[in-house]
Amino acid sequence: MPNLPGYRGRSLKLLGASGVDVGDRVRVELDEGKLEGVLMPRYELADDWHVVLKLDNGYNVGASVEKIRRVVRLKIASRPGFKRPRPMKGKGLPRVSIIGTGGTIASRIDYRTGGVYPVFTPEELYGFIPELSSYASIETDPLFNIFSENVRAEHWEKLSVRVEEKVRKRFKGVVITHGTDAMGYTAAALSFSLQGIPIPVVLVGAQRSSDRPSSDAATNLLGAVKFAGEADASGVYVAMHAGMGDGLIAIHKGTKVRKNHTSRRDAFESVNVTPVAYIRDGKIVLLGEVREKRSGEFRVRPRFERKVSLIKFHPGFDPSIIDFLVNSGFKGIVLEGTGLGHVGKYVHESVKRAVDNGLLVSMTSQCIWGRVGMMVYETGRDLLTIGVIPLGDMLPETALVKMMWVLANSKGLEEAKALMLSNLAGEYSPISPLRRRA
Amino acid sequence: MPNLPGYRGRSLKLLGASGVDVGDRVRVELDEGKLEGVLMPRYELADDWHVVLKLDNGYNVGASVEKIRRVVRLKIASRPGFKRPRPMKGKGLPRVSIIGTGGTIASRIDYRTGGVYPVFTPEELYGFIPELSSYASIETDPLFNIFSENVRAEHWEKLSVRVEEKVRKRFKGVVITHGTDAMGYTAAALSFSLQGIPIPVVLVGAQRSSDRPSSDAATNLLGAVKFAGEADASGVYVAMHAGMGDGLIAIHKGTKVRKNHTSRRDAFESVNVTPVAYIRDGKIVLLGEVREKRSGEFRVRPRFERKVSLIKFHPGFDPSIIDFLVNSGFKGIVLEGTGLGHVGKYVHESVKRAVDNGLLVSMTSQCIWGRVGMMVYETGRDLLTIGVIPLGDMLPETALVKMMWVLANSKGLEEAKALMLSNLAGEYSPISPLRRRA
Repeated sequence: MPNLPGYRGRSLKLLGASGVDVGDRVRVELDEGKLEGVLMPRYELADDWHVVLKLDNGYNVGASVEKIRRVVRLKIASRPGFKRPRPMKGKGLPRVSIIGTGGTIASRIDYRTGGVYPVFTPEELYGFIPELSSYASIETDPLFNIFSENVRAEHWEKLSVRVEEKVRKRFKGVVITHGTDAMGYTAAALSFSLQGIPIPVVLVGAQRSSDRPSSDAATNLLGAVKFAGEADASGVYVAMHAGMGDGLIAIHKGTKVRKNHTSRRDAFESVNVTPVAYIRDGKIVLLGEVREKRSGEFRVRPRFERKVSLIKFHPGFDPSIIDFLVNSGFKGIVLEGTGLGHVGKYVHESVKRAVDNGLLVSMTSQCIWGRVGMMVYETGRDLLTIGVIPLGDMLPETALVKMMWVLANSKGLEEAKALMLSNLAGEYSPISPLRRRA
Repeated sequence: MPNLPGYRGRSLKLLGASGVDVGDRVRVELDEGKLEGVLMPRYELADDWHVVLKLDNGYNVGASVEKIRRVVRLKIASRPGFKRPRPMKGKGLPRVSIIGTGGTIASRIDYRTGGVYPVFTPEELYGFIPELSSYASIETDPLFNIFSENVRAEHWEKLSVRVEEKVRKRFKGVVITHGTDAMGYTAAALSFSLQGIPIPVVLVGAQRSSDRPSSDAATNLLGAVKFAGEADASGVYVAMHAGMGDGLIAIHKGTKVRKNHTSRRDAFESVNVTPVAYIRDGKIVLLGEVREKRSGEFRVRPRFERKVSLIKFHPGFDPSIIDFLVNSGFKGIVLEGTGLGHVGKYVHESVKRAVDNGLLVSMTSQCIWGRVGMMVYETGRDLLTIGVIPLGDMLPETALVKMMWVLANSKGLEEAKALMLSNLAGEYSPISPLRRRA
């Protein structure tokens, strides 16, 4: 029985007759020329007259069945094995713990379905990038194995507690492998739950899976481990490629970073500030503050309130959505308004009702860059009078996570408001705004 | 009775005794040094011990009452008058209609309250920028006078019909002054309602009100009129400053433009594409396609469906919000997912229910840059199987507006789906993605 998932009709017939399986290295001989690569599966929705190969340059190409003369197997599908080198303990290297949560950095193409699946354990990653053993004495700790769009408060809570364990076990730093989709949200969440942490915590992901030639997994991970192991730093950061070259990894503050491109390796950017550091040619270049203020003993505060919503305003926005949240027992709403922090007049009544019902309601801007300025226009002043809390240049995503944390870690609404307005983990930046790539 | 709105207690007493009014040009003599500028009002929430001046450089400064020795009036508050020059008809200049809708470009500081209010009619603007008379023979047409966060479908409908009138009256081009907050949304709306329009329609705004020294109102408007009057162009565009200098105005495609900064003059950017043109030193520099494809006679199709919602997914997003929209008779939902177009597994069931109930459900990315790619990961493929429509590199805001238009201008769900996937007004860009300032 050939293993040819997704192939149907003409293409299934051809491949079946050729005796090849998905995952095999094959040569496809065409009417004109030939192609060599790994036979890829098709998707359920795909047509029945193309054969898809992954070429050695990492690109997929489809060949029309009508133009194929012959398909020859060159090598049977195999999965490379990974051996875990022994951590080089006792050599004076800093001790770094890599906590695995899943995501592309810990994933590869699954030839059964053609998709990208989380399959690397951190141990496998460590075997994949032997250079890591010269950077740090590594412990790997697989905690979750999920894509980051599935991460929510319960994961932040478990992750926070796990990082605190690493502090108690006297690791020099912690690296967390994470899907890139929601990595900014998780970085913000840990920035609040781990306030005052004495060591660096560095989240890292990859935009291309580790088994692709163009993967950024190795260089990103090396940069993250370098910073976690060697920087005189504390607090929560994200390490990801900067620019299109291979050499440069940016270290972003956990509360100021955002995924600003769906696919590019340099998708992550610090917003309204510069990155706090870069890793260039294996060296750490510091640009900003990388030590959290500390007062007293560090204590993890891992709780997050679930009943908080991030609402993006748009023309014709139906204010009954806000009424619904109020009626559903929500405790807080972060508005993503237009411009300096506005929503249409036709929404004000519902916003007022939310505030009057004891919800915490805050304002951020869908512009992403810049800061809300609610004293400039009548609309903004009206919203301030209603009791909406202006959040300066805080990212909407960071504001959501902060409100979830604040509502679970304050004794009442007044304390919660005061905390929202306080700069707890660098989520507010100085009044003179830098701009991306300024 | 002095006119000193917002001042209370100590500051009111000092200013009252000095015989000055808000709006006067004054000199404030301090213990050390002095300040000159226009006396500004205070806000209701402000303290009672600062006097605020607007300096000649445009910045506001507050002086503590305790450090003020004396306040001297230099010039009584006055409002400049505006005369409307007669349009220079019959001189071979192109005829351009300026439709006014409100916003900062058509506003100034109101010294009664200290806020920025819409008060300029387009006639006043025309008087304010006499150079306009050498660019075009201008007609001004005040249609609305609202801040753009209050714009919704009914305004797009009226505006579309009004623009069509200008086509019938054989204007060479139309300029629309508009608040910047929702200008991107309106530009997208007109791009769909005015498909095939034979003349250029140029939306223009200002980030600083026209009576401020640093205002960008005049240069933006001149650029917009230049393009509307002289470019061999058709379709809907946005004209706004590019870069920090005075000289450069970018012309953005109406479906690809976004306000990406709360306050900077160059806040507007084309996303995934370059601007289609620049105005530099009074000359038009074309970079892209500025003529819409036309087939047959142009006909405005101004209707927009109201029951459409733009929903931004985030960790812990409550899927009952989607259930609420389904139960409330919504016709369509644009999801702003993470990364390549994902929402958490815990939301899929509600998304499926929405699709099963006949709602149009589409996917965009909160990354802003890049394009959704829903075949790469299991999550994306599951959503495609459910029936979610992937929108490539379409902006979430454009997708919302397009869906509102599509649902009001198609005969059934299948036609609506096909229209969502068609490139009607440049809302999809070529597969090789440019990046901002690439």
